[in-house]
Amino acid sequence: MTLLADLLSTVFERRYRFIAAGKADGRPLEKLTADLIGATGESAGLTAAREILGRYEGWDDDGKRAFFRHLAEDMRISPEALRDALAAYEEGQSKFSYRRLMQAAEPPRQELIRRLNQLPGATGSLVRMRADLLRLGRGDDALEALDLDFRHLFASWFNRGFLVLRPINWESPAHILEKIIAYEAVHAIETWDDLRRRLEPPDRRCFAFFHPAMPNEPLIFVEVALTRGVPGSVQGLLAEGRDALDATEADTAVFYSISNCQAGLASISFGNSLIKQVAADLSMALPGLRTFVTLSPIPGLTRWLDDVRPEAERTDGDLMKTLAAHYLYAVKREDGLPRDPVARFHLGNGALIHKLHADADLSDKGREQSAGVMVNYLYDLDRVLQNHERFASDHVVAASSEVRSLSAAAARKLN
Amino acid sequence: MTLLADLLSTVFERRYRFIAAGKADGRPLEKLTADLIGATGESAGLTAAREILGRYEGWDDDGKRAFFRHLAEDMRISPEALRDALAAYEEGQSKFSYRRLMQAAEPPRQELIRRLNQLPGATGSLVRMRADLLRLGRGDDALEALDLDFRHLFASWFNRGFLVLRPINWESPAHILEKIIAYEAVHAIETWDDLRRRLEPPDRRCFAFFHPAMPNEPLIFVEVALTRGVPGSVQGLLAEGRDALDATEADTAVFYSISNCQAGLASISFGNSLIKQVAADLSMALPGLRTFVTLSPIPGLTRWLDDVRPEAERTDGDLMKTLAAHYLYAVKREDGLPRDPVARFHLGNGALIHKLHADADLSDKGREQSAGVMVNYLYDLDRVLQNHERFASDHVVAASSEVRSLSAAAARKLN
Amino acid sequence: MTLLADLLSTVFERRYRFIAAGKADGRPLEKLTADLIGATGESAGLTAAREILGRYEGWDDDGKRAFFRHLAEDMRISPEALRDALAAYEEGQSKFSYRRLMQAAEPPRQELIRRLNQLPGATGSLVRMRADLLRLGRGDDALEALDLDFRHLFASWFNRGFLVLRPINWESPAHILEKIIAYEAVHAIETWDDLRRRLEPPDRRCFAFFHPAMPNEPLIFVEVALTRGVPGSVQGLLAEGRDALDATEADTAVFYSISNCQAGLASISFGNSLIKQVAADLSMALPGLRTFVTLSPIPGLTRWLDDVRPEAERTDGDLMKTLAAHYLYAVKREDGLPRDPVARFHLGNGALIHKLHADADLSDKGREQSAGVMVNYLYDLDRVLQNHERFASDHVVAASSEVRSLSAAAARKLN
Amino acid sequence: MTLLADLLSTVFERRYRFIAAGKADGRPLEKLTADLIGATGESAGLTAAREILGRYEGWDDDGKRAFFRHLAEDMRISPEALRDALAAYEEGQSKFSYRRLMQAAEPPRQELIRRLNQLPGATGSLVRMRADLLRLGRGDDALEALDLDFRHLFASWFNRGFLVLRPINWESPAHILEKIIAYEAVHAIETWDDLRRRLEPPDRRCFAFFHPAMPNEPLIFVEVALTRGVPGSVQGLLAEGRDALDATEADTAVFYSISNCQAGLASISFGNSLIKQVAADLSMALPGLRTFVTLSPIPGLTRWLDDVRPEAERTDGDLMKTLAAHYLYAVKREDGLPRDPVARFHLGNGALIHKLHADADLSDKGREQSAGVMVNYLYDLDRVLQNHERFASDHVVAASSEVRSLSAAAARKLN
Repeated sequence: MTLLADLLSTVFERRYRFIAAGKADGRPLEKLTADLIGATGESAGLTAAREILGRYEGWDDDGKRAFFRHLAEDMRISPEALRDALAAYEEGQSKFSYRRLMQAAEPPRQELIRRLNQLPGATGSLVRMRADLLRLGRGDDALEALDLDFRHLFASWFNRGFLVLRPINWESPAHILEKIIAYEAVHAIETWDDLRRRLEPPDRRCFAFFHPAMPNEPLIFVEVALTRGVPGSVQGLLAEGRDALDATEADTAVFYSISNCQAGLASISFGNSLIKQVAADLSMALPGLRTFVTLSPIPGLTRWLDDVRPEAERTDGDLMKTLAAHYLYAVKREDGLPRDPVARFHLGNGALIHKLHADADLSDKGREQSAGVMVNYLYDLDRVLQNHERFASDHVVAASSEVRSLSAAAARKLN
Repeated sequence: MTLLADLLSTVFERRYRFIAAGKADGRPLEKLTADLIGATGESAGLTAAREILGRYEGWDDDGKRAFFRHLAEDMRISPEALRDALAAYEEGQSKFSYRRLMQAAEPPRQELIRRLNQLPGATGSLVRMRADLLRLGRGDDALEALDLDFRHLFASWFNRGFLVLRPINWESPAHILEKIIAYEAVHAIETWDDLRRRLEPPDRRCFAFFHPAMPNEPLIFVEVALTRGVPGSVQGLLAEGRDALDATEADTAVFYSISNCQAGLASISFGNSLIKQVAADLSMALPGLRTFVTLSPIPGLTRWLDDVRPEAERTDGDLMKTLAAHYLYAVKREDGLPRDPVARFHLGNGALIHKLHADADLSDKGREQSAGVMVNYLYDLDRVLQNHERFASDHVVAASSEVRSLSAAAARKLN
Repeated sequence: MTLLADLLSTVFERRYRFIAAGKADGRPLEKLTADLIGATGESAGLTAAREILGRYEGWDDDGKRAFFRHLAEDMRISPEALRDALAAYEEGQSKFSYRRLMQAAEPPRQELIRRLNQLPGATGSLVRMRADLLRLGRGDDALEALDLDFRHLFASWFNRGFLVLRPINWESPAHILEKIIAYEAVHAIETWDDLRRRLEPPDRRCFAFFHPAMPNEPLIFVEVALTRGVPGSVQGLLAEGRDALDATEADTAVFYSISNCQAGLASISFGNSLIKQVAADLSMALPGLRTFVTLSPIPGLTRWLDDVRPEAERTDGDLMKTLAAHYLYAVKREDGLPRDPVARFHLGNGALIHKLHADADLSDKGREQSAGVMVNYLYDLDRVLQNHERFASDHVVAASSEVRSLSAAAARKLN
Repeated sequence: MTLLADLLSTVFERRYRFIAAGKADGRPLEKLTADLIGATGESAGLTAAREILGRYEGWDDDGKRAFFRHLAEDMRISPEALRDALAAYEEGQSKFSYRRLMQAAEPPRQELIRRLNQLPGATGSLVRMRADLLRLGRGDDALEALDLDFRHLFASWFNRGFLVLRPINWESPAHILEKIIAYEAVHAIETWDDLRRRLEPPDRRCFAFFHPAMPNEPLIFVEVALTRGVPGSVQGLLAEGRDALDATEADTAVFYSISNCQAGLASISFGNSLIKQVAADLSMALPGLRTFVTLSPIPGLTRWLDDVRPEAERTDGDLMKTLAAHYLYAVKREDGLPRDPVARFHLGNGALIHKLHADADLSDKGREQSAGVMVNYLYDLDRVLQNHERFASDHVVAASSEVRSLSAAAARKLN
């Protein structure tokens, strides 16, 4: 509500004037970060935190790089102090020697990041800060090491137990919906009407994870189509003017798009339970649902074909489908895991490779990456845990007999 | 809503049946904790987490002690591994050597606690677990060291930036209110009518901090009386049948009780901003408020008197008030900080010792601890930060001239 | 939230200062009511409405009676004007003659009441006003006629389509719960602990109807116990220290208390769908529920016995149960409907008389009114509509064969 | 939330299956309406109501016209019965004779409409039904008389005291926002980006009235721009790429568009307090606001010019502005009220004609209706009530001296 927003923003302003009194000041950055870490009271700490984050917002990439460099070099671990603390600890393991060891073993920049986070609203700023760091620090060993500290803290803060699953629909606030438009990574949403077609019909659903400290920022979302039978084409699924199904008549939930929203949360794993939670919620609300599948791209298919069969005719749908089955089922990386990243994600979640479809994604991107082929990964309630474990421990890829046959046929052709 | 609660509890039940399939199992504890830490998938991890937390609930103190002992001894840091990682890091500081160092420097039990926390609702269980640990581990060096790990994680999870300030009033849910009754530590609340007298009148307020993952558990709360002038007696403040003031006519907000609710969050500092936030919010909503004071007990007064003036007549109000001024203003611990713990808290927050009142708390507890004397600490917007800093850096105790005069008079008597 | 409440109450105050400017004024009541009806603008109308309702609050019964008398006598219909309008309408039925007729046919006091209701929050005041009118006007023909106008308007405002069904539980706001304590009319709630025993256990539910313009006032509520099998004693149902049932194991929902909350809404029928809605909601949330029954008092039993069998031994449970069956099933008023008011309510709703229990309510009230006997009315989904219709059109009382047999046996004894 | 929506829609479905059992039936319409009015139980009534509203949805205009004709002719008042009841009442005024008179004086179709409204969600259907009636019944005396009954009931149901003022902003649900786009009647909103420019900037506000029984349907809304100084051009106000103002720096709130949303609520006056409420709320939230004005079209200006000065050059801004001042201030209808409808609305609300602007609305519609001239009506807190009363009683038009001078100058030219 605008009225309350007005009132409350004034409250917050006052509150911070009270708590974090003081205007922008002239302290050098090194003094500010030292003061923030050393601050014994919240007021002084919040003042320094606000000053640092405020300056950060104003910096260009060079300024940001200099800041990261300061964290990376001046606020790292001291090997000498750690060696001494470790020696003392080995001499006598006590509460005191352990506390000293803990302190020596954690770089001061971790405490700095925690204290920046005390400022209300800072969590989102820190996530954006890490997005900058990932972008600017690529290939720079010191900055990549600094990122490990961000990542360590974020893994704790964005712990699965702290996240909230929320449906996104046509009754969601516009400022959330525009982020769905912006973040959709698999099948682009062009307009608000396009968005409405994915949210409003009775046979469509969308769910996102949120963190309480970033209530206006979806972290990851999944789009679902409710269908009768397993569909084999994404353009069919999203066609304008199609007839919507009554949700209670659907027997299948199709997860046709999963998008991460926050570059700054890369490698923080919270997405792998999204599909399973959504499947569980849907199966409760709509007991008629029997089958939970994805309709997924195969992003590495044509790249692999370029390696092994550059001459294969990519418009031959049947051929492509057969080769795709083999690629997903049998082609591995050096570490023994499937070469395709989307396959690794769903197989790691306990899904199985269910079915392949030729000419299923006729968009430019679909043709280019996957030669138009798409795949359904099946989430079978009763087998998810077992599939996952066999994949995790022995790299066993679960697949339907149809997929296995296709792969075998392809193997014969390829050899 | 009960209906939704029914529906949703079924959803959650299903959801976890889906995600964390499997019944209570016979794995030994050591296997379970190893499996939880080693789990590569969320499902397996959640299953192990649920099993561990479920067993924990059922254990008596011996069982819990054994569990803590397992964490303390089997899941601690390996000095050898850390020494090797440190050596490698010193040899060449790289992303990889740093990652190895980070891993070696953190005991596996920290990851264990983080993974337990992935189970929805587990945060509250872990807070209760730490309360057990503090109780059972007192004086046990290994368990106190283990507590340092809990505390380290909790400081990150209960970061000030993640907390939410919420008013508590007569429109709050009963299950929250009964916790206010249970947790009030300063001036006990006997009945629901007693509670209502502290919440419903137009000149009463109460605020609490909550964490989003424990929405039904206040962490700390403060009770406020709105008055004209600074009151000098808590019994007067809480008298039955008193006439309530219209809030807009009040010029003073009296913080007459602050209570921590969670034993398991001991030493996690988030309370020191509570008063200042509440003061800021109140001053916004009620611009007539000019003065923000506490009406506080002096818990260490009679104990100190027993040491220095056992013969002093505790019923001589004026004498007690003079001695109390001295005790608060001038009596220090070895580290140079005030001897009285409540004084340390408010002075550390930037308040000043404003005024003393004889015969101000005539309850048994009030007479016994404080000889009936109470004190107002004053939160003066314009001086809070400066007071705090002088106290933090130089142990300077801020006090009104009245208090300083009383203290000087007492000093003359005592010498 | 208190902060918002403070801010918002200031908003509302300002808003009405703006809209309904002006202080309490000296206009005589007759002038005020005339001004309110004649007001062409909202500001003037709200000013008059606020003045009238403000004065009303301050009046004693004599003042209120005088106000009602003014409405009853000075603001009634004008028979002459109505006769003229009717003549004109009969001469030529047109939009204009009909509008004139409508105006002449409605007493000015109806418009007065509607305009009083424009003041935010006035709906509750008007409901309390009607409670006064019912109390003060009993037996006074002019005031009872005035009440017909209140009732006519309230029937429109409290139309079933405007009401909201909300669960009441231990998470409900305290200020709502204290009204449940105050309004419980069947089995008194003595303390907050008593209330908690009816709301918090997993096998207890409570639901109330609310009107959006009176969000803090339940209109009617029903208390439900979830059980295995149909219980035969209310003291058993409410026993302290009983073992609660897991809700999913219950097969029966027992509606053991229904209470109207607003004397000012007497004869406005919105309660008759409460049980059926609650039954429908519960059967959705808890598919294990098969049977929906009441456990009801028989308030007119002993009075009837005083008439027909004053000598019957009221402590003979079996005898009383047999006679009660007959009383409920076969004893009618002159209009052919059952003599017992609770029986009329449930049979009119489509329930059937299912089972009688001797020694089922051993409270003083239970012994005195019902000789300790209680009855289950059964709501059978598949027969509710048919039962209702046969009762409504032909006064057919639906009862189980057991009840019919008991009644026949009693009839033999009584003749 | 979609999950809850799914669950709840199932609940509602069940609930109505329970309450209003029975499928679409073959009863003729006349039987259905008679059954609905005669229904003694809620179940039977809801069944009939659902059947009637369901059939209505399916009818084309002829079907609807026949339904209205049925209400208009078969369910009207009986003059004979009313004459008899009136005679009885005149003979002896009693509760019983009054009740009989009330019943005879109200046509059965009013009770029919009230009973249709018992079906949850029916209020919106009835509003749409009246929109049809207004459209189809124009000029038909019997249907216009029928509309008087709808209007009578709606005035009671949409009583100001039942409405809720809610801010509309970029955080509002998309399904509400698309209605704002659809209903904006003054300055059309073309796209979602256009909408965002009216809602998202810190110097823009929008507020709407809602009725609790139609929570997804705004009834009327006003768009506000916060500015420094009174603006003289709507295109300037809405320009793309303009710099937004910090809301706390604004001294003026400009109500630049008010739109009714529901054709079916025509002539139900609830809009006249909207501006004053919004002004009061804004002045509370933003104490810097000093001036509350509209920036309004003058829809009747050129039509009037066509009558009195067809030859006047409409592109001569100064001339048009002078004539507009005269038109608004001095040109009246036969009943003595201003000829311009927007002027009547704001003057009736207590505003005054503040200032005119040439070339202020250069859209096609603005040139065509108002020769590009716009006007500010000023809402002056301290004079609103007095202005209103002088306008209501004596048709005195309040205007600034500038406007009065312009009007006088124009009068000299025109004579």
